[in-house]
Parts: sequence; structure tokens; C-alpha cells
Amino acid sequence: MSIESRLWRLAAHPKGPVEPSDFSLETVTIEDLDDGQFRVAIEYIAFEPAMRSWIMGRDTYVKGVQVGDVMRALAVGVIEESRHPEVEVGQRVVGNFGWREHAVASSMRDFGGIRAVPEGTPPTWPLSILGITGLTAYFGLLDIGQPKPGDAILVSGAAGATGSVAAQIAKHVKGASRVVGVAGGPEKCAWLTEVAGLDAAIDYKAFTDQRALTREVFEQFPDGIDVFFDNVGGPILDAALARINNHARIVVCGAISRYDTANPGPGPGNYTTLILKPGPMEGFVGLDYASRFGEAARELADCRADGKLTHAEDAQAEFAKAQAV
Amino acid sequence: MSIESRLWRLAAHPKGPVEPSDFSLETVTIEDLDDGQFRVAIEYIAFEPAMRSWIMGRDTYVKGVQVGDVMRALAVGVIEESRHPEVEVGQRVVGNFGWREHAVASSMRDFGGIRAVPEGTPPTWPLSILGITGLTAYFGLLDIGQPKPGDAILVSGAAGATGSVAAQIAKHVKGASRVVGVAGGPEKCAWLTEVAGLDAAIDYKAFTDQRALTREVFEQFPDGIDVFFDNVGGPILDAALARINNHARIVVCGAISRYDTANPGPGPGNYTTLILKPGPMEGFVGLDYASRFGEAARELADCRADGKLTHAEDAQAEFAKAQAV
Repeated sequence: MSIESRLWRLAAHPKGPVEPSDFSLETVTIEDLDDGQFRVAIEYIAFEPAMRSWIMGRDTYVKGVQVGDVMRALAVGVIEESRHPEVEVGQRVVGNFGWREHAVASSMRDFGGIRAVPEGTPPTWPLSILGITGLTAYFGLLDIGQPKPGDAILVSGAAGATGSVAAQIAKHVKGASRVVGVAGGPEKCAWLTEVAGLDAAIDYKAFTDQRALTREVFEQFPDGIDVFFDNVGGPILDAALARINNHARIVVCGAISRYDTANPGPGPGNYTTLILKPGPMEGFVGLDYASRFGEAARELADCRADGKLTHAEDAQAEFAKAQAV
Repeated sequence: MSIESRLWRLAAHPKGPVEPSDFSLETVTIEDLDDGQFRVAIEYIAFEPAMRSWIMGRDTYVKGVQVGDVMRALAVGVIEESRHPEVEVGQRVVGNFGWREHAVASSMRDFGGIRAVPEGTPPTWPLSILGITGLTAYFGLLDIGQPKPGDAILVSGAAGATGSVAAQIAKHVKGASRVVGVAGGPEKCAWLTEVAGLDAAIDYKAFTDQRALTREVFEQFPDGIDVFFDNVGGPILDAALARINNHARIVVCGAISRYDTANPGPGPGNYTTLILKPGPMEGFVGLDYASRFGEAARELADCRADGKLTHAEDAQAEFAKAQAV
């Protein structure tokens, strides 16, 4: 029996801020399964910072999403019907299914590789703490940031999906002496110190000029910064660059402040500190670490179970409604 | 018998461009040597890019030069009188003697370590190709840039003392497939291709806007940039960042375009390329490699003797005249 199913396609590459009109909702008919096929009913779809670059029409470390493509996303669902001998109804799976309600596959190698979600793992975790953002935090902090016990570490976007994992691993797993998170507003800052257990938080919205923000960074780091895990760019990057120690590592994970605007403003003038305080300012591509995803996901799940790591999830209902949250 | 001798002291930390009035000339009397002392008659004084930061009044990887201090500089001279049992008159030496005509020492450990200039080495080489600029090029290119055979390499400030050594080592010693130098004006550019043997030169003065310069960099590097050795910063850094390959290395050696001005302009907006094209953007401090200076100087001297490396020197006379050259 065929079913109706909805999906979202990219309708336009955004110029400036992303608009609902950059996507179009479509209802399609999914026919009866053929022999060897199985169908996944999607439960949760990941919402990732990386999407911002996927939809710009450029190929980066992955091919860009083109106009007319189903919007790319990691998603979790349950096998609701199977005519495949090795795929059982009821199994929960994660794969690169995109923005759709149902996905039909004929191999676990479809959709970029479909993986079973282990029994006991909450269904949203493969999209959050064990998903792209959690793995990005893990490899960026450990492989680029290389935190050592006693290091003083600054994380921007620290209340975000990636930053919060990086900051907590630094503080509770890697023995940093001081971890300070940057976030916008008192509520996020309170979460950073009271729930995530960081040493301090900087509410960037409370510092309207560069000089005041830089002064705050100096006060928060009387002995300088050893690792800066940056998700944001802009004023906090310049302030951090002014305070790095010799052989500091600057992890260029993202630049949120520069994505959603046609005019992102000047780059970090203080990059010249690198001349006198040698140390890498370096980006990374999570996919380069694909061979270690399993190891990393197990360690993250253990840290989460031990209480060394907490994370907040924000699940939005209403598949058909393209609204900013 | 006492002698008269002149020296220059720092008179003020420059604000904006360096002015002759930032230095003061003084004539001092040097008394007869005591037992154990020896006196060096200075022949050549090095003129280094690093001086620009030494005189700003800040401590960096070395203590800043303070107002009233004799201006710091590496210099070469000849022992003209000695009452030290192990120091022979006529020996040529190099040391951190500063801007003075005569230096009196009582140990070869004075003046940051006085070293004999080997027989057969031209007297200016310890201040140029075997001096701070040559060693800076050597360690910056090899340890930070890590050039591999077949790499495409861009060097800014390529006609300068440091850039010219980095570019030639890349091209003639390390097997780069393509080395392009950036310099100002047709004369320097002709030197880069015709004398230094680079593949091409970019005359940055011929490109008045960022877009045109970036287009030129794209044309010069159809397969992207693997190593950018940057002495300059500013527009060429932004253009290079736009064209780097995955796992490129950006050597932040200097930022000439930003030193001699009170208003250095925006930082490199294209640093965000690092997020998608992972690879380090990294500075270094030559002094960190002090234990390998001997090895490096021998290799540089051999390359110079083999004709793999050429360098131009600009010797100015008139110690007492503080004029820009």
C-alpha cells in the first residue's frame, strides 16, 4: 500500500540570512516496497551549524546541497516495514536521510551508511552528543587543541552543541585548570557555570566594545590562554588572540558571527600575535576522522553516562513549519 | 690610551613611523683595557625587520629595547686590542654588540655570546644570509612550512632578506613544483625570476584592489597553494587564504604591512577558509631554534657556495647619519 510522505527541498541558495522561502515543502507518494527494500519512519532530524555552509551552493569538504536537492541532514528513525532479509522491523537506525518523513533503502550502505542505534541509547543522542556536533567537539579539542593538564582554556559558543561538549571535556576529562565559556545572555552563562561546571562564563552581550571585551578576557585569564576553541570569530577571536600564551593552540571550529550576514566585517587584526607567540591557528574537518568515530562515540557516551558531560537538547515539532527557533 | 667612540641610544618609542629623533647619537670615552679585557672595532651592523618590534617598548620573545638603552643589533667586527689570554688581535667576530663603533668585553660570553667568524666567510654574511633573517627563513620554511616535493609555494616580501632565502630554499633545495614571489615593483620582480630563479613574481603594486590581486593569485596557482610564507599580511594574506589547498601551511613570519602604521587596517577576513581547508596558520620564534643555528648556518653557507642560493646585500656607510635607506 503506497503512503503519502513529505520532504523539504532547497529552493534557493540564501543571500544573507536564511529565509523560509529558501526551502520548499513537497508531498510525494511512496510506493509499496520491492523485494530487498526497507522503509524508515523518521523520528528526529539533526539541525547542525554545518548546514549553513552546505546550502551556500559551494562544494567544501562535502558537496554543496544544490537547488532542488532534498535538504541534507543526519536523522534517526525506526524500520517500519522491511522486505530485506537482514533488516528487522522495529530496529532504530541513524543515517543521512535528509529532511524527509520516510526513507526507502535497499542496503545499509544507502544514505551515506545506515547504522543501528544501540539498545539503551536515547534516540536523540546520535544526532547531538554522539552526532556531528559532539564528534566535532571531540576531535577539534583533542587533536587540534591538544589540551594538557593545567591548561587555561577559552571556548566561544560554549552553550552551543559543539562548544558545550568541548568545554566540558576540557574541564572534566582532560584536567584543564581553568575553562571559561563565552555565551550570549545570563541564562546561557548560568548554565555554563552551574550545570556544565565551567570555572566562569563571559556574557559577550554585556561587552559592547572590543576594548571592554578584551579587558574581560585579560581578567579571566591572568596567566594567559593555552587553548582557544572558537566557534564564533569576530570580537572574541581578536580578544583571545591578544591574550594567548606561547605555543597556544587556536582551534578554528566555526565562525558563527560571520556566516549569517552578507557583510561579515573585518578579520582578526590581532592574528599578528602569532608572530611573537608561536602556535597554530588551525581548522579541521570532522570527516577526516571518520575512522575514529566509533571510538569517539563510545568515549562520549561513557562520559555522558558518568556525569562528566551533560548536554541539552532542543527538539522542535512540526515538520511542515519552517520557522527559526 | 683612551679612545673616543660613538653609539646610538633609543631616545623614544616610536608612535607610527620611526623617526630619526627616536634615536640619539652620543660620543663616549673608552678607557684603556684592564687585564682580561678585549676591544672589538665594529665593521658592520645588521639591520633587521625584528628591530621594528624591539623598539616599541614591549617585551616580546626578547626584552624590548628601553629608552636610554644602546640600540640592539647583531654586529661584526675585528679584535683590535686584547689583554685576554685567549682572544687574539685580528680575529673577526660576531656578537650582539648594538649600534656602537667599539665594544669592550671580558669574556666571549658577553654581548649575548661572541662567536668567531670562520676564515673565508665574507664579513657581512653572519649578518645576512647566515644571520637572523637567513635563519628565520630556514626554520620558518622547513619547520612550519614543511615543504614537500611538488608543492606550490607562495612567498610574500620575497625580495626581502628573509623572503628571498625562503623562496630559494623552497625552489632549489626542497623541490617545490612552483614558487611564486610577491614584491613591489618591476625591478624586484625581475630579480626574483631572473636571479633567484623563481617560477613567477607578482608585483603587488600593480594590483590596486583586493579582487584583482586575488584573481592574480588564482591564476598563478591553478592547483592551489600548499605553503604560504607570509612576511607582509594585508591584501596578499587574504588573497592567499582564498586559494589554499587542504592541509596547506601558512607561515606567519611577519606582517610588514601592519608594523609601520598607527592604523593597520582590518585583519584577514578569509581566515575562515581554515575551517574548510584544515591546516595550520602559525608563527614561530627563531630563538626557539638556537640549538640548531650551527647546523642551519652550515647548510645555508653550503647552498650559497653551490649557487643554489643567492642574496643581495645593501651596505650603508655613515654611522652618524640616521636616514632611512
